[in-house]
Amino acid sequence: MSGNTLGTLFCVTNFGESHGPAIGCVIDGCPPGMALTEADIQLDLDRRRPGTSRHVTQRNESDSVEILSGVYEGRTTGTPIALLIRNTDQRSKDYTNIAQSFRPGHADYTYFQKYGIRDPRGGGRSSARLTAPTVAAGAVAKKWLKEKHGVEFRACMTQIGELEIPFESWEHVPHNPFFAPVADVQAYEDYMDRLRKSGDSIGAKVRVQASGVPVGLGEPLYDKLDADIAHVMMGLNAVKAVEIGAGFDSVTQRGTTHGDSLTTRGFETNNAGGVLGGISSGQDIEVSIGIKPTSSIISPRHSINTLGESVEVITKGRHDPCVGIRAAPIAEALLALVIMDHALRHRAQCGDVESGLAPIPASIQS
Amino acid sequence: MSGNTLGTLFCVTNFGESHGPAIGCVIDGCPPGMALTEADIQLDLDRRRPGTSRHVTQRNESDSVEILSGVYEGRTTGTPIALLIRNTDQRSKDYTNIAQSFRPGHADYTYFQKYGIRDPRGGGRSSARLTAPTVAAGAVAKKWLKEKHGVEFRACMTQIGELEIPFESWEHVPHNPFFAPVADVQAYEDYMDRLRKSGDSIGAKVRVQASGVPVGLGEPLYDKLDADIAHVMMGLNAVKAVEIGAGFDSVTQRGTTHGDSLTTRGFETNNAGGVLGGISSGQDIEVSIGIKPTSSIISPRHSINTLGESVEVITKGRHDPCVGIRAAPIAEALLALVIMDHALRHRAQCGDVESGLAPIPASIQS
Amino acid sequence: MSGNTLGTLFCVTNFGESHGPAIGCVIDGCPPGMALTEADIQLDLDRRRPGTSRHVTQRNESDSVEILSGVYEGRTTGTPIALLIRNTDQRSKDYTNIAQSFRPGHADYTYFQKYGIRDPRGGGRSSARLTAPTVAAGAVAKKWLKEKHGVEFRACMTQIGELEIPFESWEHVPHNPFFAPVADVQAYEDYMDRLRKSGDSIGAKVRVQASGVPVGLGEPLYDKLDADIAHVMMGLNAVKAVEIGAGFDSVTQRGTTHGDSLTTRGFETNNAGGVLGGISSGQDIEVSIGIKPTSSIISPRHSINTLGESVEVITKGRHDPCVGIRAAPIAEALLALVIMDHALRHRAQCGDVESGLAPIPASIQS
Amino acid sequence: MSGNTLGTLFCVTNFGESHGPAIGCVIDGCPPGMALTEADIQLDLDRRRPGTSRHVTQRNESDSVEILSGVYEGRTTGTPIALLIRNTDQRSKDYTNIAQSFRPGHADYTYFQKYGIRDPRGGGRSSARLTAPTVAAGAVAKKWLKEKHGVEFRACMTQIGELEIPFESWEHVPHNPFFAPVADVQAYEDYMDRLRKSGDSIGAKVRVQASGVPVGLGEPLYDKLDADIAHVMMGLNAVKAVEIGAGFDSVTQRGTTHGDSLTTRGFETNNAGGVLGGISSGQDIEVSIGIKPTSSIISPRHSINTLGESVEVITKGRHDPCVGIRAAPIAEALLALVIMDHALRHRAQCGDVESGLAPIPASIQS
Repeated sequence: MSGNTLGTLFCVTNFGESHGPAIGCVIDGCPPGMALTEADIQLDLDRRRPGTSRHVTQRNESDSVEILSGVYEGRTTGTPIALLIRNTDQRSKDYTNIAQSFRPGHADYTYFQKYGIRDPRGGGRSSARLTAPTVAAGAVAKKWLKEKHGVEFRACMTQIGELEIPFESWEHVPHNPFFAPVADVQAYEDYMDRLRKSGDSIGAKVRVQASGVPVGLGEPLYDKLDADIAHVMMGLNAVKAVEIGAGFDSVTQRGTTHGDSLTTRGFETNNAGGVLGGISSGQDIEVSIGIKPTSSIISPRHSINTLGESVEVITKGRHDPCVGIRAAPIAEALLALVIMDHALRHRAQCGDVESGLAPIPASIQS
Repeated sequence: MSGNTLGTLFCVTNFGESHGPAIGCVIDGCPPGMALTEADIQLDLDRRRPGTSRHVTQRNESDSVEILSGVYEGRTTGTPIALLIRNTDQRSKDYTNIAQSFRPGHADYTYFQKYGIRDPRGGGRSSARLTAPTVAAGAVAKKWLKEKHGVEFRACMTQIGELEIPFESWEHVPHNPFFAPVADVQAYEDYMDRLRKSGDSIGAKVRVQASGVPVGLGEPLYDKLDADIAHVMMGLNAVKAVEIGAGFDSVTQRGTTHGDSLTTRGFETNNAGGVLGGISSGQDIEVSIGIKPTSSIISPRHSINTLGESVEVITKGRHDPCVGIRAAPIAEALLALVIMDHALRHRAQCGDVESGLAPIPASIQS
Repeated sequence: MSGNTLGTLFCVTNFGESHGPAIGCVIDGCPPGMALTEADIQLDLDRRRPGTSRHVTQRNESDSVEILSGVYEGRTTGTPIALLIRNTDQRSKDYTNIAQSFRPGHADYTYFQKYGIRDPRGGGRSSARLTAPTVAAGAVAKKWLKEKHGVEFRACMTQIGELEIPFESWEHVPHNPFFAPVADVQAYEDYMDRLRKSGDSIGAKVRVQASGVPVGLGEPLYDKLDADIAHVMMGLNAVKAVEIGAGFDSVTQRGTTHGDSLTTRGFETNNAGGVLGGISSGQDIEVSIGIKPTSSIISPRHSINTLGESVEVITKGRHDPCVGIRAAPIAEALLALVIMDHALRHRAQCGDVESGLAPIPASIQS
Repeated sequence: MSGNTLGTLFCVTNFGESHGPAIGCVIDGCPPGMALTEADIQLDLDRRRPGTSRHVTQRNESDSVEILSGVYEGRTTGTPIALLIRNTDQRSKDYTNIAQSFRPGHADYTYFQKYGIRDPRGGGRSSARLTAPTVAAGAVAKKWLKEKHGVEFRACMTQIGELEIPFESWEHVPHNPFFAPVADVQAYEDYMDRLRKSGDSIGAKVRVQASGVPVGLGEPLYDKLDADIAHVMMGLNAVKAVEIGAGFDSVTQRGTTHGDSLTTRGFETNNAGGVLGGISSGQDIEVSIGIKPTSSIISPRHSINTLGESVEVITKGRHDPCVGIRAAPIAEALLALVIMDHALRHRAQCGDVESGLAPIPASIQS
């Protein structure tokens, strides 16, 4: 258990490095009988793909996925689904000059200390490129959850640097390079253009939502649904903060305000973010993540090298000036993987059958 | 894997309910040969114990721990350490009137939907009382980490409701009921007194720190050190938000600011919170958690019952008006359990020996 | 994962030592809503209990089990079921003289080398006494499997030393101290009396059967149903060999003989032992285990001590001259735990619903 | 955890089907810094490869392995090692006529019942072809164990059908197609020729040995070293029986005979097979497995089809008339994977350092 597998029943084992021959994953535990083609997966991969606007890295990867196993005549068989994505546009020479230095904010120093060895090409294993297999696996989970339970996943950017992005509508999200829920993104385009020219990078905030999640998913103690959500979100490259529901706003709330009242028509509010006592309530799961600025910047930084000497580091290569921009589809995938895993865990212990009373409507407000 | 076990190599399996005969845990994977007595564990249990000030629940539990196994002649044997804490001060009748109703903000509704059955006495399994075995296990982890690596754990309250608590010194923390790092806590005493009289509750924010953590702990992808920290923290009752290092402040930071420069004397800053690429850097691990207000309040709330009918709920019993107050020792224990697990995982894969260059000093600032 | 937990979904974490204050286990993953009392568990514990005939150890343990958690108003809640058995009849002084020596055939040497520390009292953790919590957990699994699927578990002794025991009927098993499926056990009584007087011990062979197992349990590759059965059986103290179905007889069988033909009335034979490709076929699961002679004998043996010096060892204390005699109820419990785990795993991935065609009758012969 | 991952710390996740585009595995947990090339792995794959003599299947697969990740500049990095083997010589049309029927002795019926869907081409996932990735992963484990601890693995055939094969020397094993430890294999050649002509198949018995295993590997209770060995061996296609050390011969042994005496020069015998109390003793690990006759035979058999109707089945295609013949290198790999996993588990809990007294020599006899 060296940390490259996610999930206990819907298990995703991720492999590969940014500049190795290929990246991919093996999904073990997918229920049999679901229609699945490479096109189902490619859709989300394309949403995450680099090189799609001037605001993200210009590395040009087609990210074409090949299903190696687990699907027969277009349907999942219940056996492991191996997904392969070949790397095609590596420029490893970009990394020659930093091979012996530790880039600030990067995993260079810690990998070197941990393993005594390090693949410097594009960050090797620590690269955000490794989110592609996660997105591919998430697409499989999303499909099952949608077909079985009607669950929908959505994510959008809510802040970029100092600029808070107001929520207008989910409909705008697919139509701009920022996954922003607004019609007019000119301000963000300008902001990013200025930033890119300055050779700097910036953080962002992203909101992720799952609606239609069945009530009852999650485990009572350590593996609470929100705990597992926090695990995957904080595990996403560059994420430094995670909130569920009201999040840090809960700190200043009173009990009389925070606790979401139940009525026969549904919950009156959703401060809980869809999770009570670690178990889904049937309301929308609401998550927010804070993402740090990209560490790969062309501005010179102080650092040391593998000999322990002072050096100045400039990170060339092709990088996202705001890694948060492409985080939306990844965060959706991660949320889907957690919910999928808990859907199977719930079924293992409690069966397919409904228990208790009929779930109340998710919310009278949404 | 129904979620009641924490850790992959230092595994803590937690059992019990708030009003059952006993609570406890089994620790599997503790290295052999460490001196361990019940007194070592009792110390942290006493820090978490209810009934120690007027600002926390008045339930009077001695929380005496009995070591049932895994220790022979005062030393751990490498076999499972079972810890037992008998419940002694249950008042289950307090819960008769809410047995058929769902308290807002509580796990009542979700447990009932998940399991089709529910132990209403004190919240049963969802009670914060179940943090006691976690604290007990954490004390074992803390002892090993201190003796083996010199790691120290500290936590303090940084905000209670609207009141931000300035950081004066860690020395004040043990001397007031709020785990506040300030000499004068009169303002917080008054605030809590007013709140208690109003029958309401309030949220809080707590900071947790580990210092002396060896460089190299954590796994590259899903089980990053910070991901596992977020998992345990978000899994703590009432927690709705988790930050590592700069946390949400990263959103507005530039890359030139956020990335902590390395020098031969150490890191210049600690925006990373001690974790780079999911692996400890040797700097202090810095975590912050946001805790919601207690859901058990005597003010009447709208809800429904198990028949789906509208009801009004008042939660009697003995409750913490601010669950965040007792969170500090629990958060320390959780952080210790994560770091302990990763210390063993690191040893499994990379051995006891140092790799790479000698770690640089943790920080030139701290 | 230090090896003290069995199962992936129906997880049993076992703790305790032969002469410590208590032994027990925590069951995590039991489905909610099943009626369960201590009496349900005690029944199987009593079948395994020492001191019930002159042919087994005279240690007098009541093995009374206390349910500490996971059951509310007589029904499982879906939360961890902790089971506690206090040790009451320890005679640790019996072990003073062997505390520094390694008894041949025992775990003394290997524990000392592994942990650098060892609890010599009654073998500590390596004692067969630790099968009691396994039997207790198995009783819970048996109850669920019987109520949900009608599965029945049976075990009997088929050989004791050189004496093969013919199979007459399962009905005889509960009526003699050998779990022998024959009416007249005088020959085995005499055999054991002679052996006990000679200060020696003997091996045995035990057959275990599960009938009514649903078709479809087991995983395709490493965690095959028979693989997991072999795991638990070989993990039982003193077991040195495991067979499924035809077992070693398969070596001399032809393919035309071994492969069990299917007909519309059921399978014609059961050489497979109820498992095909690692997945249950609906036929009886048939397992056979070979058990070594007890290592604790009063005849003197050559050995060494912790200083590496030659010594002569005599094992006093109260021991079973044939550990195989009490193995039957334990083997049943182990088989039940494996099948229970796979029943939940099946449900997780494939759901409660029947798939494929209606299962054919288990066998036209049985 | 759908059973396609082996190991807890050295984790091998296996994927693929007999006639899909590719098979392979992902190894997670390999220590960093070990030299590793595809040639290291190819060696064992070639020993297992089909088509190498007239006594095994004539399917012609090169089984060329490609390392997709986890190795940089010829050394393992500590990150997942993905291994890919393309299938090249599928003849799926051989299976058209059995696609709707269940071959006796095969997994056809159970897969269909479990998943409601089945890949009939070459047995799909249940094919022995899936042992290739296991062998590849085993080669990595073997290399580390040899370099770190000097462990050696060997396996040979000890019986084919009625013919017991005497042990002459390990040196003969690589020089005949049967992995037989004898110089003259004419009798077995003739036996197999007769059998093949008759359209039938036969069982076999194989011995596996690991020498140089450090003392102290294994866990005390459920995950005993021998339990985990039994798990992998019984999980190997067609295996129906597993013995450790004296195995079933223990049944008729007396305690005075079975328990291996310790002397200052080493153990006097090895009835234990190198495992005491579930933990390695430093002696040779000795395992024996019983393998059933191949189920794929051209002789007609009674069966039913997916409609539940009676049919006659003949299995064409290219099959091993004795699957036991190619089992030797696979069994070595499986044993290596178990020992590797326990070597890492031991290191996690007990560290790299030696504990206790210096291990005594493995055996004065071997």
